[in-house]
Amino acid sequence: MTQYERYAQDIAGLIHSGSLRVGDRLPSVRAASRSRRISASTVFEAYYLLESQGLVQARPRSGYYVSARALPDLRAPDPAAPARQAADVEISDLVLEILNLARREAVVPLGSAFPDPALFPLARLARSLASSMRRLQPQHLLQDLSAGHARLRQQIAQRYAQDGLTIGVEELVVTNGAMEALNLCLQAVTEPGDLVAIETPTFYAALQALERLKLRPLEIATDPVQGMDPEALAAVLAEHPVKACWLMSSFQNPMGHSMPEGRKRAVAELLARHRVPLIEDDVYGELYFGARKPLPVKAFDRQGLVLHCASFSKCLAPGYRVGWAAAGAYTRRVERLKLMSSLSASVPSQLALSDYLGQGGYDLHLRRLRQTLERQRDVMLEALVQTFPAGTRMTQPEGGCFIWVELPEGMDALQLLRQALDQGVSLMPGQLFSADRRFSRFVRLNYAAAPAPAVREATRVLGRLVGDGPLLSN
Amino acid sequence: MTQYERYAQDIAGLIHSGSLRVGDRLPSVRAASRSRRISASTVFEAYYLLESQGLVQARPRSGYYVSARALPDLRAPDPAAPARQAADVEISDLVLEILNLARREAVVPLGSAFPDPALFPLARLARSLASSMRRLQPQHLLQDLSAGHARLRQQIAQRYAQDGLTIGVEELVVTNGAMEALNLCLQAVTEPGDLVAIETPTFYAALQALERLKLRPLEIATDPVQGMDPEALAAVLAEHPVKACWLMSSFQNPMGHSMPEGRKRAVAELLARHRVPLIEDDVYGELYFGARKPLPVKAFDRQGLVLHCASFSKCLAPGYRVGWAAAGAYTRRVERLKLMSSLSASVPSQLALSDYLGQGGYDLHLRRLRQTLERQRDVMLEALVQTFPAGTRMTQPEGGCFIWVELPEGMDALQLLRQALDQGVSLMPGQLFSADRRFSRFVRLNYAAAPAPAVREATRVLGRLVGDGPLLSN
Repeated sequence: MTQYERYAQDIAGLIHSGSLRVGDRLPSVRAASRSRRISASTVFEAYYLLESQGLVQARPRSGYYVSARALPDLRAPDPAAPARQAADVEISDLVLEILNLARREAVVPLGSAFPDPALFPLARLARSLASSMRRLQPQHLLQDLSAGHARLRQQIAQRYAQDGLTIGVEELVVTNGAMEALNLCLQAVTEPGDLVAIETPTFYAALQALERLKLRPLEIATDPVQGMDPEALAAVLAEHPVKACWLMSSFQNPMGHSMPEGRKRAVAELLARHRVPLIEDDVYGELYFGARKPLPVKAFDRQGLVLHCASFSKCLAPGYRVGWAAAGAYTRRVERLKLMSSLSASVPSQLALSDYLGQGGYDLHLRRLRQTLERQRDVMLEALVQTFPAGTRMTQPEGGCFIWVELPEGMDALQLLRQALDQGVSLMPGQLFSADRRFSRFVRLNYAAAPAPAVREATRVLGRLVGDGPLLSN
Repeated sequence: MTQYERYAQDIAGLIHSGSLRVGDRLPSVRAASRSRRISASTVFEAYYLLESQGLVQARPRSGYYVSARALPDLRAPDPAAPARQAADVEISDLVLEILNLARREAVVPLGSAFPDPALFPLARLARSLASSMRRLQPQHLLQDLSAGHARLRQQIAQRYAQDGLTIGVEELVVTNGAMEALNLCLQAVTEPGDLVAIETPTFYAALQALERLKLRPLEIATDPVQGMDPEALAAVLAEHPVKACWLMSSFQNPMGHSMPEGRKRAVAELLARHRVPLIEDDVYGELYFGARKPLPVKAFDRQGLVLHCASFSKCLAPGYRVGWAAAGAYTRRVERLKLMSSLSASVPSQLALSDYLGQGGYDLHLRRLRQTLERQRDVMLEALVQTFPAGTRMTQPEGGCFIWVELPEGMDALQLLRQALDQGVSLMPGQLFSADRRFSRFVRLNYAAAPAPAVREATRVLGRLVGDGPLLSN
């Protein structure tokens, strides 16, 4: 056995015994070389070997970390059968009830939809806010009101260009967060009573938007790993007069999956053939762990049928309420609805973001954020495997914030939430993610909503509750 | 003739000859006493006399100003007959076209709906923004998301209390400006196809909201001086299944009138009898020129039927996009719609306003703003009388920003707008203020949108265009 193999074996032993845990950093090359009295290149060889075995993972400019790939093979839940019929939606009371439940202070918010706000450059944003408002000409407070601040729209267009998408400034409408963008886009392409194709399970905000606009959802089979099934979508489009489709193509809420590019292209082509517009919710797209940002379905759209919605709320500036739509052929309609429904997004927020983006630290912030989130995913996966019943099925997302976990037979997610809250942990019960509330045996957990030790501990609390066996639903 | 009478006569002569113009400040008591070698009390006596004659007006802590009451008696336009039938609304294209027309730079924006932003304490707001964001705990960016920042809601409730209204904090929903509040409130109390009673003419945002929600307007006779006619409203309520009423009770857009308290009470009682909710748009309420703030209809509501909407956009912080609804019995429904449609208002904007309000300079700012606006109303009225055809009818508002002017027979407001824009002046044509566009011979002018000299000059430009005689409509 060579020197580097021996060193690699030692590290592997530490991982298997649990001394080095998922998400832990390996000693730096310099430190390892000094302490083991081996050359730096020998340390590198050892780390390459461990990486090829899937035990550790390199993170640019940061070092080597124990990888979740060292975990036993995890199985994702099976795809759920879509509900047979389009139903009216009445989910909002339940959503409000649960959001109120989970709002208690001093709870580890695994039920949150946001990364921990402490991960964002809030001090720099506050400086951008102050300096851009000091420089502001008073008249500019009333300009660009409806479509958004001109410079910010340019910067957003430039970021699309960086990802390989050509989006003209005039196609961008700045909104009060992505939530407003999604709502306006859906309204722009539908009339009350229309059928809308959605994922199974789907983000509850989509259900709420359908409820508010009196639309009817048609569920499409959605794989927990690969996303919406183009064949299932094709069958539904052939049979029903669907007026729009709504999906999250990357790091879906609640399951965390990202559609492979082939599926995205297939969905784009299918919708183009039927001339059905797509509302694409892409608020987690920047939070990828892979080598490059996954393309949205929008990238495969030739006819302006995709209304791509995103925001800064999940990756830079929560609470600033700045999102946007790149609304394709429907842009003027969306802009008009925007003008009618809330006039414009907050000017201070828009100026602050524009100033921040102009300073050039955004990409560095995103790189760090992604590394942190990936590490925290590993931390939660490890805790889940260690404390949940053997064979528990869950997803292993390659970006975003969410793991979708299937609870043992007989358990009820809403019950689990109530018990968890008593122990200072929140979660999002599966009931919220379909109109008929049938995902009652699933929970959505956010690994990014608190620092790693709190996430680890909170996940274990859930594991103990689940391990106590089936809870009676009342 | 006594000394003070002589001095008063001299001043009156200067006013009548035009040497002292409406809105001009009289010499200070000290300066007059020195230059005329008379006692301060003699100057005071003279100014009291001029005030009793309606020629000048005292403004607390500021001095005496030449008053618009020195103008010849002006007649308001006659009330318009309401349109006979409820129609579908399609006004948005025209609104967008006109807003785009009027957005050119270097135009004196008499068509604006806002006071000149230079009149607002923007530097102090920017400091509040900076310091409150510096102090912010990151977690608080995600709290109070839907109903609004808790401290700000308390402060808004306290301002209601100051005006004699008891509004609980839990009744307040903070929104992206009053526009969103109005839209959510209207949606909370109607279904598509419902009839909604509105003013004649009415603010075009009400028409747009009806259009967006597929509601049908029923126009109620509205007096340009006294506002909506309770008897006309009673007749309509007796005959039609009206589901909601929308009006601006104080300093209405576009006519500028404020309903007398008796009418407000009558409208409240009438709506209560029919159990019809009222969406009350009160965004100009703080801009009163009288001794105290006019009460809203909400003050006479015993059953929680009035959804009172207001904002900081017209009186403190344009562009910050912070408004609210005090939505009475419909509060939970409005809060839920808010959560569904845009989640929350900008947190930095809310914190900045809360910090500013906590520092106690708001009432002083408002007093100064009101004095400036009143002076500017006088300036515009004088210029209108001097340059528009004799007998031109117009309103004389006691608050807010707007004068509603009737053009000579044969003229078209949209044509006048195009010609005015070529000369660097905007206005709001009457066409926007009814679903059938029939107020084509009226314009809404904002006397507060630019400094007094610019307002005077721009009004004269309009006077010259109108004086050139009927324009052919094409």
